Amino acid sequence: MHKHESRSPLVRCITVVASPPSLQDNRADADRLKQAVANRLRAEGVDAPLLIPLALLASLAGKFRQAGFQGCALVNMLPAFCEIVDFFSEEPGRLPGFALDLGTTHLEGSLLDLRTGAPLAAGQCVNRQIGFGADILSRIHHAGQDGRLGPGRSGTGLAELRAAVLDSVNDLVRMLAERAGCAAEDIRAVSISGNTTMVHLLLGLSPYHLCREPYIPLVNAPDPCRADELGLAVFSGAPVWIMPSIGSYFGGDLISGILATELDRAEGISMLIDVGTNAEVVLGNREWLIACAGAAGPALEGGVARMGMRAGPGAVEHVAIDRDRWRLSFVTINGAPAEGICGSGLIDLVAELYLARLIDFRGKFRTEQDDDSAARRDFLRRRLVIDEQGTRFIVVPAAESAHGREVVLTQTDLDSLMRSKAAMYSILTTLTAQVGVAFGDLARIHVAGAFGRHINPRQAITLGMLPDLPLDVYQAVGNSSLRGAEQVLLSGDCRRRSLEIRGKITYLELNVNQEFMLRFTGARFIPHTDPALFPSVPHYRADSGAEIA
Amino acid sequence: MHKHESRSPLVRCITVVASPPSLQDNRADADRLKQAVANRLRAEGVDAPLLIPLALLASLAGKFRQAGFQGCALVNMLPAFCEIVDFFSEEPGRLPGFALDLGTTHLEGSLLDLRTGAPLAAGQCVNRQIGFGADILSRIHHAGQDGRLGPGRSGTGLAELRAAVLDSVNDLVRMLAERAGCAAEDIRAVSISGNTTMVHLLLGLSPYHLCREPYIPLVNAPDPCRADELGLAVFSGAPVWIMPSIGSYFGGDLISGILATELDRAEGISMLIDVGTNAEVVLGNREWLIACAGAAGPALEGGVARMGMRAGPGAVEHVAIDRDRWRLSFVTINGAPAEGICGSGLIDLVAELYLARLIDFRGKFRTEQDDDSAARRDFLRRRLVIDEQGTRFIVVPAAESAHGREVVLTQTDLDSLMRSKAAMYSILTTLTAQVGVAFGDLARIHVAGAFGRHINPRQAITLGMLPDLPLDVYQAVGNSSLRGAEQVLLSGDCRRRSLEIRGKITYLELNVNQEFMLRFTGARFIPHTDPALFPSVPHYRADSGAEIA
Repeated sequence: MHKHESRSPLVRCITVVASPPSLQDNRADADRLKQAVANRLRAEGVDAPLLIPLALLASLAGKFRQAGFQGCALVNMLPAFCEIVDFFSEEPGRLPGFALDLGTTHLEGSLLDLRTGAPLAAGQCVNRQIGFGADILSRIHHAGQDGRLGPGRSGTGLAELRAAVLDSVNDLVRMLAERAGCAAEDIRAVSISGNTTMVHLLLGLSPYHLCREPYIPLVNAPDPCRADELGLAVFSGAPVWIMPSIGSYFGGDLISGILATELDRAEGISMLIDVGTNAEVVLGNREWLIACAGAAGPALEGGVARMGMRAGPGAVEHVAIDRDRWRLSFVTINGAPAEGICGSGLIDLVAELYLARLIDFRGKFRTEQDDDSAARRDFLRRRLVIDEQGTRFIVVPAAESAHGREVVLTQTDLDSLMRSKAAMYSILTTLTAQVGVAFGDLARIHVAGAFGRHINPRQAITLGMLPDLPLDVYQAVGNSSLRGAEQVLLSGDCRRRSLEIRGKITYLELNVNQEFMLRFTGARFIPHTDPALFPSVPHYRADSGAEIA
Repeated sequence: MHKHESRSPLVRCITVVASPPSLQDNRADADRLKQAVANRLRAEGVDAPLLIPLALLASLAGKFRQAGFQGCALVNMLPAFCEIVDFFSEEPGRLPGFALDLGTTHLEGSLLDLRTGAPLAAGQCVNRQIGFGADILSRIHHAGQDGRLGPGRSGTGLAELRAAVLDSVNDLVRMLAERAGCAAEDIRAVSISGNTTMVHLLLGLSPYHLCREPYIPLVNAPDPCRADELGLAVFSGAPVWIMPSIGSYFGGDLISGILATELDRAEGISMLIDVGTNAEVVLGNREWLIACAGAAGPALEGGVARMGMRAGPGAVEHVAIDRDRWRLSFVTINGAPAEGICGSGLIDLVAELYLARLIDFRGKFRTEQDDDSAARRDFLRRRLVIDEQGTRFIVVPAAESAHGREVVLTQTDLDSLMRSKAAMYSILTTLTAQVGVAFGDLARIHVAGAFGRHINPRQAITLGMLPDLPLDVYQAVGNSSLRGAEQVLLSGDCRRRSLEIRGKITYLELNVNQEFMLRFTGARFIPHTDPALFPSVPHYRADSGAEIA
């Protein structure tokens, strides 16, 4: 499932057979154990200092003695040192490790067997911090406030946010442990990949400066800690690997993405696009990496568009308009009754509206329609509503929706999407221009996240959101934040790379980039003020569209 | 005051001047600090990994920012890694470190300025574990029991013992801090030197196996921890250096003694004798070290002899018998009214009794006296009591004592002292014989502890307790356990040596040594069954003694 050159998990079982103590060999239990483990590690070329944490010393030495001075030592393989944290008389059947994608709205996690890499369980849950604000900025704001007074909760906003996310993580831990048929305390290693703000809040660090120029995190590369220092419900001595970040707007989730796509190892130049609330983009190869991030995502996430929702059951994810018969068809995730529209559905919808000439190149609904056929007139009469609330397009009539209300797209939603698509394209052009790379030079564009999984690149090209390249250049990579977290659990090489990438990457700050602003203005049209950039779009437009089969 | 080649204290102030963050240099606060400190350390050739503990990260980064990204970083210089634990805008005037001799009955401590080595305060207090038993064996026994139920105390005997010693240590910390005019939290480093059992109890480790063959400690060389892990009342991030031990009967206090006397660096062969409850002896030079320990001390410590007491105010420390005028004179510590007799007083007394022919070569009171002069008869009448309780010698009449009771020496006390002196001499002969060294080869005999400070080597030779060597071979070294603890606070070289000594030393187990038992039998006479070993004693005996001036 995961690529890793050599089996070098974050936590290892080291089999030791020590001679029992005698008057002639009166080494202390802990020293005897340490020497036995150190000998084994040295034989493998591992020469790092070997420690035993004081809090675990008594139980560890007791188990070693109980087992007759032979068995299996559990060793945390950290970069600065190794530490012995447990002892088994027999090698355990499996060694669960927990990888976490710490998202702003959702947490997604998996349990893996550290010894084999085999998946044991996977799942997700809501980040309870949502109760303190949907987006990152509102969380940062809340962190600086006095906490809300409520039952059993007090202290600062930061403490509240920390407790909320910790509760969520621990719920997820227990859920996955149950699915895997083990106890939470059986989980022996943790890796966490998240954006910089989420990591700050989990560690109880003030995010105050993250959103204020010059946008400085309190820490980018926290040293690994033990689970009990963080309050995680797993084995107290489990090491917690926190994926390092590059800056306030470039988090460990993107380092994970680079690991998962091997952007840092590829010979050819490729690109990684991760769209969440922000669009985060990395460009490069094994020689160099450049990255930037910008607010290209809001329109695509739940909570911004009026009927916007996260990609989940009931979200409209694909829309098609048959321009011969003037019929609209759509697909929802899991086929559930429609509740709203997710990001990919929104892009499909707007692209189809453009191809059907229902919106113009500025992204405005065309209220004056020409060459109207009877079918088209009927379609418009049923779908396009203009009243005192403004103009809106009915995607799903009230009678067909999950909640008995229409699922609609308003002009405001359209404007917001236009800004997002313009930002996205401007980010991509600014980044490639910065290093003198043409889009055509790209061997691969990895598109991460739910956005990447559901988006139809052709529709995004139609809108001028993604560059006009052969569709097979685009590759959906799923939750690369979680994949990267899994990889560092299993591979020392990936842990090293995660730290090396930090030193290798150049971060381009767009907030102060003049070219970006110029490009943004040019990109606020469909597909672009310079149509020559999108030669395929006229062909797409010549199609008459079709219903979804 | 202390020898240390280079200024390399356990905790250092590292001055850093970092550039403030900007859009062009958006490194995180903690990473910026770490890089600045790492650059300074690398410039000095220190290339160890540099960490920041999670628990201190927030406050540390906050102080760094507050100080304008320049000032003074406090760095724990541990063997496996360095860790940044605090930050000051200005270099503090002094940096107190706490050195502790963790004794079974008493704790003795000092505060030093880590930057200059200057003493800031010194003092001692009782080890409250005494409430659970006076000697080590009774403590080990109590550790395995259920705890006594009492106000605010519960749990196991081990937990009680740990709490008791921790309270004592923290009382001492606060007392010394007050004397030095600082807060306990200003103390930035701790070193602890104690016997193996005391260290186990302080760390909350079961001492069960320490007193059971083959006498295996749970740990000899615990890794340094932070003060908050141990519950010490000093700065939470202060590193705690625990002097390593060699075995159950050879503790870190002796490693301290070797450091303080530089036995491990001397060209000539020398010896260190530390008499507490046990006599612990080390022999060697910079090439080799051999050590053993045995129960030679009980008679010399408070609590065994009927009127025995620790060397403190009111303890009779010197006794002289004028054998012309038959008068006994004595000196108490601090000149306070006599309460009892300390170890050195006991040795003086018994040697004088022997020289005055009041006891025979077997250490028995001579009830039938020959060649009695009138003065001698009168002396005996007043001093030697024989009744149904047995035979006893009155050292201080009731009217002259602090408590209105006679200070006496009983035959039982004498028998006990004879065993101790025989054990001591047997230990010394067994140890030297083991490596083929004659007593005459010894360049120096360091005598540590209160015993060493107060003992008169000539009297110990008279009894056949110490070998018959020129008196200037003997050197009192005071509390070398505390001295060694101070040295590791100040010198990385001493910290390295303390670990190297562990690997270098050979421990001779006397509990199973046949030769030792034979020698013990030969040594149970004054001065010895082989008087040729003590050629000076007849000369001493020819003296007529004198009163103490």
